[in-house]
Amino acid sequence: MKQFISVDDVPSVPRLVDIALDYKKQPFKDRTLGENKTLGMIFLNPSLRTRLSTQVAAKNLGMEVVVFNIDKEGWQLEMNDGAIMNGNTSEHVKEAAAVMGQYFDIMAIRTFPGLKDKESDYKEKYINQFIKYAGVPVVSLESATLHPLQSLTDVITIKEQWQQPRRPKVVMTWAPHVKPLPQAVPNSFAQWINGWGEADFVITHPEGYELDPKFTGNAQIEYDQDKALEGADFVYVKNWSSYKDYGKITCTDSSWMVTNDKLKGTNAAKIMHCLPVRRNVVIADEVLDGPNAIVIPEAANRVWAAQAVLSEILKGNIV
Amino acid sequence: MKQFISVDDVPSVPRLVDIALDYKKQPFKDRTLGENKTLGMIFLNPSLRTRLSTQVAAKNLGMEVVVFNIDKEGWQLEMNDGAIMNGNTSEHVKEAAAVMGQYFDIMAIRTFPGLKDKESDYKEKYINQFIKYAGVPVVSLESATLHPLQSLTDVITIKEQWQQPRRPKVVMTWAPHVKPLPQAVPNSFAQWINGWGEADFVITHPEGYELDPKFTGNAQIEYDQDKALEGADFVYVKNWSSYKDYGKITCTDSSWMVTNDKLKGTNAAKIMHCLPVRRNVVIADEVLDGPNAIVIPEAANRVWAAQAVLSEILKGNIV
Amino acid sequence: MKQFISVDDVPSVPRLVDIALDYKKQPFKDRTLGENKTLGMIFLNPSLRTRLSTQVAAKNLGMEVVVFNIDKEGWQLEMNDGAIMNGNTSEHVKEAAAVMGQYFDIMAIRTFPGLKDKESDYKEKYINQFIKYAGVPVVSLESATLHPLQSLTDVITIKEQWQQPRRPKVVMTWAPHVKPLPQAVPNSFAQWINGWGEADFVITHPEGYELDPKFTGNAQIEYDQDKALEGADFVYVKNWSSYKDYGKITCTDSSWMVTNDKLKGTNAAKIMHCLPVRRNVVIADEVLDGPNAIVIPEAANRVWAAQAVLSEILKGNIV
Repeated sequence: MKQFISVDDVPSVPRLVDIALDYKKQPFKDRTLGENKTLGMIFLNPSLRTRLSTQVAAKNLGMEVVVFNIDKEGWQLEMNDGAIMNGNTSEHVKEAAAVMGQYFDIMAIRTFPGLKDKESDYKEKYINQFIKYAGVPVVSLESATLHPLQSLTDVITIKEQWQQPRRPKVVMTWAPHVKPLPQAVPNSFAQWINGWGEADFVITHPEGYELDPKFTGNAQIEYDQDKALEGADFVYVKNWSSYKDYGKITCTDSSWMVTNDKLKGTNAAKIMHCLPVRRNVVIADEVLDGPNAIVIPEAANRVWAAQAVLSEILKGNIV
Repeated sequence: MKQFISVDDVPSVPRLVDIALDYKKQPFKDRTLGENKTLGMIFLNPSLRTRLSTQVAAKNLGMEVVVFNIDKEGWQLEMNDGAIMNGNTSEHVKEAAAVMGQYFDIMAIRTFPGLKDKESDYKEKYINQFIKYAGVPVVSLESATLHPLQSLTDVITIKEQWQQPRRPKVVMTWAPHVKPLPQAVPNSFAQWINGWGEADFVITHPEGYELDPKFTGNAQIEYDQDKALEGADFVYVKNWSSYKDYGKITCTDSSWMVTNDKLKGTNAAKIMHCLPVRRNVVIADEVLDGPNAIVIPEAANRVWAAQAVLSEILKGNIV
Repeated sequence: MKQFISVDDVPSVPRLVDIALDYKKQPFKDRTLGENKTLGMIFLNPSLRTRLSTQVAAKNLGMEVVVFNIDKEGWQLEMNDGAIMNGNTSEHVKEAAAVMGQYFDIMAIRTFPGLKDKESDYKEKYINQFIKYAGVPVVSLESATLHPLQSLTDVITIKEQWQQPRRPKVVMTWAPHVKPLPQAVPNSFAQWINGWGEADFVITHPEGYELDPKFTGNAQIEYDQDKALEGADFVYVKNWSSYKDYGKITCTDSSWMVTNDKLKGTNAAKIMHCLPVRRNVVIADEVLDGPNAIVIPEAANRVWAAQAVLSEILKGNIV
């Protein structure tokens, strides 16, 4: 792989999943692969799991890691070409990315959408500017519209938990939240489940919460949550703000919260969430504390996803 | 050891002191003990000595270290079970601690008291939530009511500096400050001097500044500072806010500041302080710059205290 | 070297340049030199290139690195001797520097000028307090009046790019900016070009922007920018605030911005800048995006400059 921004950068999802599961068994088997290589992790936004698991993954491969909260430890970047920089931005991404590309062998970047300008967010302007100027492989730690390390983890987790010959039914359900959140996780989950191709995939949400069809593809869209959840083997819960009425909260119906009652019709479905999750707003305590929640092993798998991605980039595999 | 929150977690204080002093002589003798192990250091509050010395200690043992200022690089945690999370907290400690426990072999946490709710602070709700959910050994980098790495350091320093056959007289004196400070350091110092058991221990402070007796135990309480200091071999200076009138400053009498004049009646006492110290408020320049101040070697010993604790946890010694 | 604060700490600039260029060819040849040694990097101000390149350099030498944003992760330091610390400062540099000196083998510090009190800034009070109390070698990551790692890099870059037998003409030109900036970079560049001694050196700026003559030495000062640039082989662009009318912006004339038109009379001069640069305010896009800008390879050389300095300190060379 030359970069890791989207499922489209991955020659074979099943193969990448297998590489990750191998690392889970033997975390240190490639301890010398990253020798004398440095991963630069650039944060324009906060992060917990991605920040920590990727550091652990890189060190498992013997890499050095440099973490840089550019917004707090540096200064604000200009992203617009041709700008007359007499305002709040101190450095253009042309210089910042190119310079960091001189220091690091791989650059990993987290940058959230503004949720104001749909076109700019969906062009992935920020991460694409980094890719354009970095001159080294770039790994997304979540970008405006996608979160591929999370989605790879999710596929790994489903594959690991599902031991039956038939295809699992995977349902992604919208759930309420108090703040307008990006569509990156649901877009990306849809993109990866489709790219993986080994599940029956249903998406359920209130009307007006339709995601960009270029990510949801042939997934079945079902507006009735109860109907969607029927017979589900995995329920992937996530809030997102409206794509149509961009960045807005257009539904506050708390009955979309995932409770045990809601899950009665499922096939004792495993409950997934990318975290952080607001308890008793998105998912009820009874579900998260119950026997079917797999959010912790799911989060634990973040290490192996990151390790698989970094190792493939280090190996320069472009298959 | 399985955790390091209080002196009660330590099977033998003298043995731990000896382990620390051995590392002081040979810092790198256990360079492979921490191989392929990662220490996660989670800060909910600022830190200098603890932050830096613990990193050095961990690296001396060959561990990887990941530092995470969760308040600045992540988000605010919910600590209350059953909370409906529609406010300012983005993630419950149930998830945050459990997830970080998947990434790290040992978790170290700094969390200050609110100094508003005595019961909650003295239940050590925050660090106990981490311990409950982390699933890996937890080391306190200072909690609401205790600061064991500091206190272990203090015992090491007294032991190292005291070369006489008789028991030293150790006096802990309250001193003024402009802000209400936690009781963690004085509580912990009292707990450890008592747990160590090799000193005569006197505590002096204005009326109303009595500490929780569960920590001070049989220490002699003397309200007359001059009397308390008579014949002292070590003077441990520290401000704290009132435990009785919880979190309040009830005395602003600057005559409690430690000066050379105050120390005349001591046995040329060594002067200790955990730092940071406000000069000419808590302790006068003449004392800190004088020949009996040992605050710098005391702070230097923080490395060996942390290294002893981490090594014992890595060895899984539960004696 | 025992410290690296100014060109005066360097026994031989050409030799240090050669050491850096050797590391550029073989970054890992001294992988064991820094074994069991720790570099503490203390930031009182933001930083990108210096922060990242110095970390990479230290790791290339096998050192451990601990980064500490003391202003954000710690607290405010008191720099004045004799202060009664009842205000906003929580710890005196006497303690902070001395303690950190116990944890680290080399301390590197970034501290900007206040630009209010010329005398205090030009006495380098802050970094000198660190040097006085640290007890270990101190490396400047930019101080109030100098930025020696940048200037060493600049000399390396000129030496590397200049392959002709005659001496190059190096012109440092002032350029406009929206904020009052320190004089550290131009002071330091002048000091190093003079200390290197292998270039004809001209400085051009509006009247009132004269730098401290102790740094500019025998450099030719030319107030006419066009005249100064005639026949230049290297143009070093930088804004600074007035030294005379201390810390003030006394010229806002945008015609000082460096454009292709301005550069017509040069000898196809290479364009240098320490970065970050505000595009279309300090230097026009057409110049930065043109074939003669060498700001990225210049920034890349920061690693080798830092590695040369750290290695010389580790080797204890005082020649």
